[in-house]
Amino acid sequence: METTKTPDMSRRQFLSTVGKLGGGAAVFSVMGTLGLLSPETLKAADFTPPDGNELAMTKRNGKKIVILGAGIAGMTAAYELGLAGFDCTILEARARSGGRIWSVRRGTTVAEIGAAKQVARFDDGLYLNAGPMRIPQFHVTMEYIRKFGIPIEPFNNVNDHAYYYNENVGELSGKKIRKREAKADVRGYVNELMAKAVNQNALDMPLTPEEKEKLVAYLRSEGGLDADLFYKGTSRGGYKDEPGARLDAGVIRDPFSMKAIINSGFGNYLSSEYGYDQQMMMFHPVGGMDAISSAFEKRLKGKIKFHSEVTEIKQSGSGVTVSYINLATGEAKQIEGEYCICTIPLSVLKQIKADFSPDMKKAIDSIGYASAGKIGLQFKRRFWEEDEQIYGGNTLTNMDISSIYYPPTGYMQKKGLLLGYYAFGTSADSLGKMTFQEREAHALKQGAKIHPQYHKEFEASFSVDWKKIKYNEGGWVSYSGDQRQTVYPTLCKPDRRVYLAGEHISYVTAWMAGGIESARAVVTDIHERVMKE
Amino acid sequence: METTKTPDMSRRQFLSTVGKLGGGAAVFSVMGTLGLLSPETLKAADFTPPDGNELAMTKRNGKKIVILGAGIAGMTAAYELGLAGFDCTILEARARSGGRIWSVRRGTTVAEIGAAKQVARFDDGLYLNAGPMRIPQFHVTMEYIRKFGIPIEPFNNVNDHAYYYNENVGELSGKKIRKREAKADVRGYVNELMAKAVNQNALDMPLTPEEKEKLVAYLRSEGGLDADLFYKGTSRGGYKDEPGARLDAGVIRDPFSMKAIINSGFGNYLSSEYGYDQQMMMFHPVGGMDAISSAFEKRLKGKIKFHSEVTEIKQSGSGVTVSYINLATGEAKQIEGEYCICTIPLSVLKQIKADFSPDMKKAIDSIGYASAGKIGLQFKRRFWEEDEQIYGGNTLTNMDISSIYYPPTGYMQKKGLLLGYYAFGTSADSLGKMTFQEREAHALKQGAKIHPQYHKEFEASFSVDWKKIKYNEGGWVSYSGDQRQTVYPTLCKPDRRVYLAGEHISYVTAWMAGGIESARAVVTDIHERVMKE
Repeated sequence: METTKTPDMSRRQFLSTVGKLGGGAAVFSVMGTLGLLSPETLKAADFTPPDGNELAMTKRNGKKIVILGAGIAGMTAAYELGLAGFDCTILEARARSGGRIWSVRRGTTVAEIGAAKQVARFDDGLYLNAGPMRIPQFHVTMEYIRKFGIPIEPFNNVNDHAYYYNENVGELSGKKIRKREAKADVRGYVNELMAKAVNQNALDMPLTPEEKEKLVAYLRSEGGLDADLFYKGTSRGGYKDEPGARLDAGVIRDPFSMKAIINSGFGNYLSSEYGYDQQMMMFHPVGGMDAISSAFEKRLKGKIKFHSEVTEIKQSGSGVTVSYINLATGEAKQIEGEYCICTIPLSVLKQIKADFSPDMKKAIDSIGYASAGKIGLQFKRRFWEEDEQIYGGNTLTNMDISSIYYPPTGYMQKKGLLLGYYAFGTSADSLGKMTFQEREAHALKQGAKIHPQYHKEFEASFSVDWKKIKYNEGGWVSYSGDQRQTVYPTLCKPDRRVYLAGEHISYVTAWMAGGIESARAVVTDIHERVMKE
Repeated sequence: METTKTPDMSRRQFLSTVGKLGGGAAVFSVMGTLGLLSPETLKAADFTPPDGNELAMTKRNGKKIVILGAGIAGMTAAYELGLAGFDCTILEARARSGGRIWSVRRGTTVAEIGAAKQVARFDDGLYLNAGPMRIPQFHVTMEYIRKFGIPIEPFNNVNDHAYYYNENVGELSGKKIRKREAKADVRGYVNELMAKAVNQNALDMPLTPEEKEKLVAYLRSEGGLDADLFYKGTSRGGYKDEPGARLDAGVIRDPFSMKAIINSGFGNYLSSEYGYDQQMMMFHPVGGMDAISSAFEKRLKGKIKFHSEVTEIKQSGSGVTVSYINLATGEAKQIEGEYCICTIPLSVLKQIKADFSPDMKKAIDSIGYASAGKIGLQFKRRFWEEDEQIYGGNTLTNMDISSIYYPPTGYMQKKGLLLGYYAFGTSADSLGKMTFQEREAHALKQGAKIHPQYHKEFEASFSVDWKKIKYNEGGWVSYSGDQRQTVYPTLCKPDRRVYLAGEHISYVTAWMAGGIESARAVVTDIHERVMKE
């Protein structure tokens, strides 16, 4: 991409100024003139990695930085600061890197807080991405995937051949229907109503007759309406008898009644595909999300101290001392750095002794975390593909399990591992309270209402309740009320020599990209601060 | 899948009977009771391959079948009949199998009818699927992919990060906008109008107040409306400044005006994703669609005579004699079979001497074929990924080129080959009339309005106009008016000992599945006929 560099302001500052003067249209126009491509490209362009020569030239090379946590934020910071000549050490309590990036495979064990040990007994090659499992194509995460040469494949976030299944919603209760059926019917009926209303001038709209005609043409196309603007079912919703060879023209399914479809609540599921960070295409690394954390770890050889549980953070005028226990040896140790980047989730950090300012302490203490839980179910046979022709995507339901995600990888292999539930909020809480065995039984019982094959084909499960996972204690940060205005700004500022980073220090919460963005902001700040010293 | 077998009628006949007696709901209910899964699964279940022992037991093994054309229909027939003990020979005019399944790679050459020779100069590893390029997950094609163990990957048929670009449509003329912007705005405005109309009881609807509330809830969710049912833009449409780290909450883009979005015509593009056979997920073989034809060919060793151009089809009371020229040697040859399966496209067949009945001849002569054209453009750099974060999917436009498809494979590799146009109808005709050089220039000129990078990064092209491709002379069959009722039934019946097969003998035209389904119908018929003899 060719761009005209403006030496004394970043591209973004420049465009922001243009925007203030001329509005969004002016920004677009200037972007066009400059050969810039879209607002989406600006975020990545925001970060200019520190020049690796600057520190060396001022003989400040080797400044010691202590980083707490080898999740994606901590490793991004260590990676970028390392390139700039800083000497980083990451303390990581676990034996592995990645944090919430966690691909559960055969032999993976976990003891949730207050619960028994669970061992994954999946077959080799099958895995559960217990944490992040998909990446929007425009996220900064893709930059590192590109840089590190990590093989990726699409994550099937949309599949009209998968199902909706709701209970206690009237006529369609307890029926699994292909998503395409609900989509065709709800769009059909609503656009029929709308098209007729427009045609009869029943709506007050500031449109010319020609524009009204165009609107009706759109409504007709959107709803699959006939020439008289009636919705009578279309092939979009599928067939009761598929078309085939010779005279077999197929028979289109009969639409559900408008009342049935409205009461089903299925219509409300449609917009789950419209969310900015849920829209197709999405991607994931081949073989497990931890391909990303492993790629970072490989580039941080010798810089990560595993089994190192932080016990205290203490600052002086010239540095930060972090006390930790080596969990492998039981030894109490200390490490000093000129600066510290703390990526520990606030739910955990608030339990660690630290001499933060009272404001910072109060802020950390006040923040809540979201409940989230997943269960991986291994089956002998990929019946969703073999019997039901569903290749990836998800089925949505109003049962506790909320959703079933079919594996977006390994198509047509013999066995398969699907996500038996991915639950949030109160559903996640009630599932989380159960033992592993109870969760498995519950996921199988509810899932079998949609896939009776569950009973015969099930082999092994592994479940995770993020609130009960040590060193995380929550799925992702959850700011409530006016916390973004009140306490959040405190978290964003360094507390003397300690900087917070992680998805919780961003507006891209719950995504790896949030961790990366926040780490890059800290990298820039520390570099600038050291250069000014 | 466990199913109760009914010995004297096929599952489908049975369900069809239930349907006639009790309607669609009864079919659904019976299917549930039987453990059947969905109407979509019935088509595949339709075909019971002939029992390979039957012919042998009656000492009729080795019945000679001559098949014309080694496309997917011809090869499916030869494969299935071969398993049942028939002795099949396929005559294929080309040096390769596949027919319209054609993956163009470095060194592929073609001379379109009346045009100069074209040689593909793509880099190794890059290819253009000049014919079929995607497979709906529920098509019968997937059965053979499974049976033959062909590696597949998703075909990205939906991508909200790609663009719409229209000219001469008012305010938004000549602007490339991300699909998500149009989707968010058109859904926003329309659902706002609708929600308000419902709320004000402006529409005459047979709904209870409670149902109206549910409808409004849906409309609000569908449109991304605020609590007062106004559409004021949402993050679904993207940001003018992306959210990021710390205090960077992002700034949502300003929606286009309702007038602008209606006049743009973008709304009409939405439903292109709703079509039954366009809905996600779709798939394609890794490395080129010809992985499918190659897999068939491998299983038909010695049965395909290449370079064999059919010159005459002649029937006697006991068999069929097909005359052909060996294009490699110039030799005129003949082959006899007890039956003949002719998969030659009707556009070509009508030019071949044959003693068909007058009705059959008239039918063959009367059928038209669709225009379709594609151009593959190789670029030095995958700028659509690097600069614009578009990984697969398509951009739609009202220019001649109609669409640009980004490669759904090889993500993040250095070079890439995109589909510079995939045009039908009059657009395809006007592009088809051009020389290869003119098509290339035209595709680059129009495409560069959307991707200015075209100019700098272009390396090589290869274009196909299916109307001008020898042995095809058309994209796919195109029945017009009442032809399905008048002449089509004649095509579906055997002409004495000659059976037609191919996508044109199906209601799944333009898809590989149509060729397969029609071939399987012929296989069943010939087997039954021979067993009755």
